Amino acid sequence: MGASNASAGNISVNGRTYQRGTAPVVAICVDGCEIDYLEQAAASGTAPFISGLLQGPSSLRAECVIPAFTNPNNISIATGRPPSVHGICGNFFYDKEAGAEVMMNNPKYLRAGTIFAAFADSGAKVAVVTAKDKLRRLLGKDLQGVCFSAEKADEARLATHGIENVLDLVGMPVPDVYGAELSEFVFAAGVRLLETQRPDLMYLSTTDYVQHKFAPGTAEADAFCAMMDEYLRRLDALGAVVALTADHGMNAKHDQHGAPNVIYLQTLLDDYLGKGTARVILPITDPYVAHHGALGSFATVYLPSHEAANRVIARLVSVRGVQLAIGRDDACKWFELPPDRMGDVVVISQKSYVLGTARERHDLSGLKQPLRSHGGLSEQIVPMLLNRPVRGVDPHRRLRNFDILDLAFNHARA
Amino acid sequence: MGASNASAGNISVNGRTYQRGTAPVVAICVDGCEIDYLEQAAASGTAPFISGLLQGPSSLRAECVIPAFTNPNNISIATGRPPSVHGICGNFFYDKEAGAEVMMNNPKYLRAGTIFAAFADSGAKVAVVTAKDKLRRLLGKDLQGVCFSAEKADEARLATHGIENVLDLVGMPVPDVYGAELSEFVFAAGVRLLETQRPDLMYLSTTDYVQHKFAPGTAEADAFCAMMDEYLRRLDALGAVVALTADHGMNAKHDQHGAPNVIYLQTLLDDYLGKGTARVILPITDPYVAHHGALGSFATVYLPSHEAANRVIARLVSVRGVQLAIGRDDACKWFELPPDRMGDVVVISQKSYVLGTARERHDLSGLKQPLRSHGGLSEQIVPMLLNRPVRGVDPHRRLRNFDILDLAFNHARA
Repeated sequence: MGASNASAGNISVNGRTYQRGTAPVVAICVDGCEIDYLEQAAASGTAPFISGLLQGPSSLRAECVIPAFTNPNNISIATGRPPSVHGICGNFFYDKEAGAEVMMNNPKYLRAGTIFAAFADSGAKVAVVTAKDKLRRLLGKDLQGVCFSAEKADEARLATHGIENVLDLVGMPVPDVYGAELSEFVFAAGVRLLETQRPDLMYLSTTDYVQHKFAPGTAEADAFCAMMDEYLRRLDALGAVVALTADHGMNAKHDQHGAPNVIYLQTLLDDYLGKGTARVILPITDPYVAHHGALGSFATVYLPSHEAANRVIARLVSVRGVQLAIGRDDACKWFELPPDRMGDVVVISQKSYVLGTARERHDLSGLKQPLRSHGGLSEQIVPMLLNRPVRGVDPHRRLRNFDILDLAFNHARA
Repeated sequence: MGASNASAGNISVNGRTYQRGTAPVVAICVDGCEIDYLEQAAASGTAPFISGLLQGPSSLRAECVIPAFTNPNNISIATGRPPSVHGICGNFFYDKEAGAEVMMNNPKYLRAGTIFAAFADSGAKVAVVTAKDKLRRLLGKDLQGVCFSAEKADEARLATHGIENVLDLVGMPVPDVYGAELSEFVFAAGVRLLETQRPDLMYLSTTDYVQHKFAPGTAEADAFCAMMDEYLRRLDALGAVVALTADHGMNAKHDQHGAPNVIYLQTLLDDYLGKGTARVILPITDPYVAHHGALGSFATVYLPSHEAANRVIARLVSVRGVQLAIGRDDACKWFELPPDRMGDVVVISQKSYVLGTARERHDLSGLKQPLRSHGGLSEQIVPMLLNRPVRGVDPHRRLRNFDILDLAFNHARA
């Protein structure tokens, strides 16, 4: 059966079933899209289509995965399940046996298949466009379809990415990895793909460079929303089911003078337990840190014993800016995290604080604006907006951002 | 040594030492005082003295005790320590052996002495005024000084309350227990006591009837702040060190139609585990529920086994409005709660949700306005305002509302 006959049958992935309809589904993950960005842009009149979505029948709120970081949430959306199932709980984990910090950007660390791959395997046309290439590699695992990043759009080849000549298709040059254009490229590519290939399922995932720098309601933030607004309107006009959510929210993490509110956990625990006794892992750490300096509101700490873990929790009780510090077992149960990739203690900071390792290990020279970041409970509520009425959702069900494809396929069909 | 010679010596209570100075200290706990109340009243011009405090050198923020309820926080302020030390973690706990819910309003459940009693024992003049009498009984334990409630101001007798003829002193009738006057009486009594008896240490604790009904910036809320403002100004003018904090914040807990967002936990767990297997305790429950219907953002669940506790946590992961559900051990470590008075699972709801037992067990007939309440992480940040510069506080120290007397005695002296 060809891809154009995509209406037949249901597709089951990771214990969930998706009903294939006839209209194309475009799911969008706007990186760092705190609801305030949309509401302020709507209020200022710069985002009329988003304003309509916010006032429409499917203006929902959902909760993201903790840690409120990009990869765990994008992979949750791609698989429809939390990190306890798919295994990606950040950019790094610590391999105790190997004694090494391990980067989880390699698809081999993914423990579940994606909805994208399953759709493609069943004959549906699938397209995935990301801002950064590191995420493209994870999301594209085993996917027989279109999958490329804006960052390396010029490197897309038919054999490896399911598409080539992307720059010609989109009509934009390869954007700078630090800039709003990287995200705009994703939207522009999405519109052109829908116009030319009309995928049954498309996933667009942006980057939060703008959100890290600019607060909701600023000219730059409103301009970003206005840009999104126009592409969303076009996707809607092309007949797609458009569903938008975010990987996490975003909050100011600085004091009234603009200095970042940082808890340097490794330094603090070195002083407390002796140098190197604790190993602090910041799962936000990645090669692109200019906009946040690897400072987020979630950390996990590896310790030599249960007793040391208890001592760390007792110590953190008196540290300004820590909102929660609990043991791995409870953290993994509640936040649905993989125990073998989490430290002995999970630490979450307050809304206006971030967690670091040691001052000398964070390059803050790239921070040209007061720090804005994410990772904790204060960034968990995200928008979930659809351009169709959503029906048949239990009002007591906790909505997650990774329910977006469930809503789009199973509840938003006319 | 007489009470007027109170400047000599330090007083140690519960492992903390307080330096007695010469100026009287007035510590005020404004029940349910979310910072927004003060900021909006300051912005509207109705609270000029508070506005000055907010812009002054000692405009701090502190964290209250979780559960963010009145008694645990007032007792923490009175003892300078968290509930793990003083034992009061709500209005109720469940006595597993006795198979009975036990009310903790009786002073016998208090496991630590108060700072008030220690000051009085060392010869200082102490006065404690509460809005409700239930709190007066706990705060007044072993106190040789003035201690009465606005609610039963007419029942104060020299032998039992350290004072009598309170209505004459204050010049107000006994106020209705449901109304702003109950709190105003506390402030008015404080001013009159300072004028007539000049206690070395005075503690004033109001009630949150107004805050449960009215949002920040409403006419009623601003009027309450304006009332406070005038009394605070007078306390300041009388030469006192004035230190203000709150027992907890306050948030709207309803949907856009004004209906309360309630998770009925007992019903949910009866359906899930079988009737009566779980026992849900809401520590907010007390005899005065008209303004909140015994609905708050904290609950604890008693269960027959560790396995049942794990099942409950796994079930709650998918329930809308639950922000955190963790086991007793981790909850007691992080929130500094007494393990023998907590259930097997601690549940905290999201900012706009509350936890109930069963619909038929909550009388919501007294709710004339959309529900506002407290109890969880979203109500943890409270104001900490002093009318003197605060010196020598470690900037990395987590400030708690129960540090108020430490700040007032040890850090706010000129």
